[in-house]
Amino acid sequence: MDTGLDLNQPAPELTAAICDIASVSGAERPLADAVEQALRAHPHLSVDRDGDAVVARAGEGRVGRVVVAGHLDTVPIAGNLPTKRDGDVLWGRGTVDMKGGVAVMLRLAAQIASPVRPVTYIFYDNEEVEAERNGLGRISRTRPELLEGDFAVLMEPTSAMVEGGCNGTLRARVTVRGTAAHSARWWMGSNAIHDAAPVLERLGAYQPAKVEVDGLVYREGLNAVAIEGGIAGNVIPDRCVIAVNYRFAPDKTEQAAFDHVCEVFRGWDVDLADSAPAARPGLDRPAAREFVAAAGGEVRAKEGWTDVARFAGLGVPAVNFGPGDPQLAHADDERVNITEIVECENRMRAWLAPDEG
Amino acid sequence: MDTGLDLNQPAPELTAAICDIASVSGAERPLADAVEQALRAHPHLSVDRDGDAVVARAGEGRVGRVVVAGHLDTVPIAGNLPTKRDGDVLWGRGTVDMKGGVAVMLRLAAQIASPVRPVTYIFYDNEEVEAERNGLGRISRTRPELLEGDFAVLMEPTSAMVEGGCNGTLRARVTVRGTAAHSARWWMGSNAIHDAAPVLERLGAYQPAKVEVDGLVYREGLNAVAIEGGIAGNVIPDRCVIAVNYRFAPDKTEQAAFDHVCEVFRGWDVDLADSAPAARPGLDRPAAREFVAAAGGEVRAKEGWTDVARFAGLGVPAVNFGPGDPQLAHADDERVNITEIVECENRMRAWLAPDEG
Repeated sequence: MDTGLDLNQPAPELTAAICDIASVSGAERPLADAVEQALRAHPHLSVDRDGDAVVARAGEGRVGRVVVAGHLDTVPIAGNLPTKRDGDVLWGRGTVDMKGGVAVMLRLAAQIASPVRPVTYIFYDNEEVEAERNGLGRISRTRPELLEGDFAVLMEPTSAMVEGGCNGTLRARVTVRGTAAHSARWWMGSNAIHDAAPVLERLGAYQPAKVEVDGLVYREGLNAVAIEGGIAGNVIPDRCVIAVNYRFAPDKTEQAAFDHVCEVFRGWDVDLADSAPAARPGLDRPAAREFVAAAGGEVRAKEGWTDVARFAGLGVPAVNFGPGDPQLAHADDERVNITEIVECENRMRAWLAPDEG
Repeated sequence: MDTGLDLNQPAPELTAAICDIASVSGAERPLADAVEQALRAHPHLSVDRDGDAVVARAGEGRVGRVVVAGHLDTVPIAGNLPTKRDGDVLWGRGTVDMKGGVAVMLRLAAQIASPVRPVTYIFYDNEEVEAERNGLGRISRTRPELLEGDFAVLMEPTSAMVEGGCNGTLRARVTVRGTAAHSARWWMGSNAIHDAAPVLERLGAYQPAKVEVDGLVYREGLNAVAIEGGIAGNVIPDRCVIAVNYRFAPDKTEQAAFDHVCEVFRGWDVDLADSAPAARPGLDRPAAREFVAAAGGEVRAKEGWTDVARFAGLGVPAVNFGPGDPQLAHADDERVNITEIVECENRMRAWLAPDEG
């Protein structure tokens, strides 16, 4: 049928085609349907559907299996669809985050019937919204066997650089207590906001570590992200709460990271709000070494938290590698240079099917 | 008629009677009606009504006129009505704040037909709620001539001590600015919450003045009453706002007080939220000196802001003087020792009608 996706058109054209099937988070169904239909046309693939996620497996067995993953959804459209092509530049929502990567995945899945290692391609929903809706998270809870592998590549935009692992992230609340009183008789109270000064000083003076893990250097950070205190305009406040965000390197568990935050703020009440684990790049594994070699040899650490940590949580080391400048993700003028899409496809193909080059 | 107030019953009994006519702010009408009706029975009084406020004037002319004022409303009832009498203690909502003072005013108005100086008694509404609803404020805007006088006594609870004038109060916002960035790449931003530390230090180190005005010492205060900052849990905050409350002595205008706050926080943006003027005690005036002598000779400075400042705004110096412990105002166990009511009445009577003693 003519509404089907043609997976044999060049990757830049395929990117434009799947961008033009709008798929803002929660509304991925038409794109997921098109992806499922196109993949089912290829008998070398075993295709599964889970909500608005599609999983396609190529190659036999579990040994040496690798996972290639990308999300189908985008942030809301900002007058930037349909896509526009201007020379080597493709403009529009999703061109960077991350339908260039998805187009590459679709072509690899369709065209590589006999990869040198078994491959699982995962196209998932709801990456751009609250963590509990994330399709990869849902599959990891309900069907973790679909994510099994020795190594994973998440095709998020990295300007076609390999970015290994990711920092973890943790939020905690530091509470400073005082004694309320009428502000006309302030000496009867103890001002919790004034007494928060040393907490803020400690944050300002904090020297975040740079930590080497598997040969990559991760830059940590500890920052206040919110502060609140105050009861009324005529009351000495009895409480001031500082919310801090600790970005921690993959040498630490979430517990070790929280212990560190408690140590930094020893003397105050510290409680954990939420956390997400860091991910090691896993560059000591053969599949990873071969991937890095195929991708050009250079690897840098990923600073931000990404879904690679979901693989790490399942014991699968993972890297980010995809076309597009991450600084342009979510921007109204989101755009990708199509040469990056082609380069990523070639590198991935050299890794999965070196003899077909 | 038997629902009328008997202004000749002893002050403690009259206090109980007017407490038992519930008059939470906004619902003062039945009490205002009863007060108006009782006062109109006395031909030596000239009675005016303004909304739920009642003004009664005794004596001729404007020269040497004094004002005695009290509010009719209370904070909400907390299961503490009707009043209960236990020996010398009268329990219930309004017994302290401030129907003991109102009872004294009613008896003085009814019984002193020829005061030694002309007197204006003002019974007003909505003192316990937002300033814009305050009945005394309304009269000062629409009928300021009713408040004219050389000196005013506000019969708010002071444990029967004379408390002169009051501090002014001012609220300002101090804004610390930074640069937003993703907290995973915190070094791209500048953290406004961290940079608020020196503002809090300055507050903690601030030495508030004690200022003598007209022989009374006023204790100032400068305190943070609120702090807020933060955009999201993964964003370096670009703004932190500290709300400060400055309680300033009656030697300063509101403008001078704001200038002082700007000076303390030089280097940051400071903007004024609101302010209310301080009030001088005016103890240099003959009517005030005679009042203090009649009231026992002792005077202390009033720390909190009260409606005496509304008189000050009209050029009328004012003091607080009334029965009841101000610490029990608004308390669920609000209660007054009736000997304070009797003492206040006797002192006021000695001032307004010394020859009738």
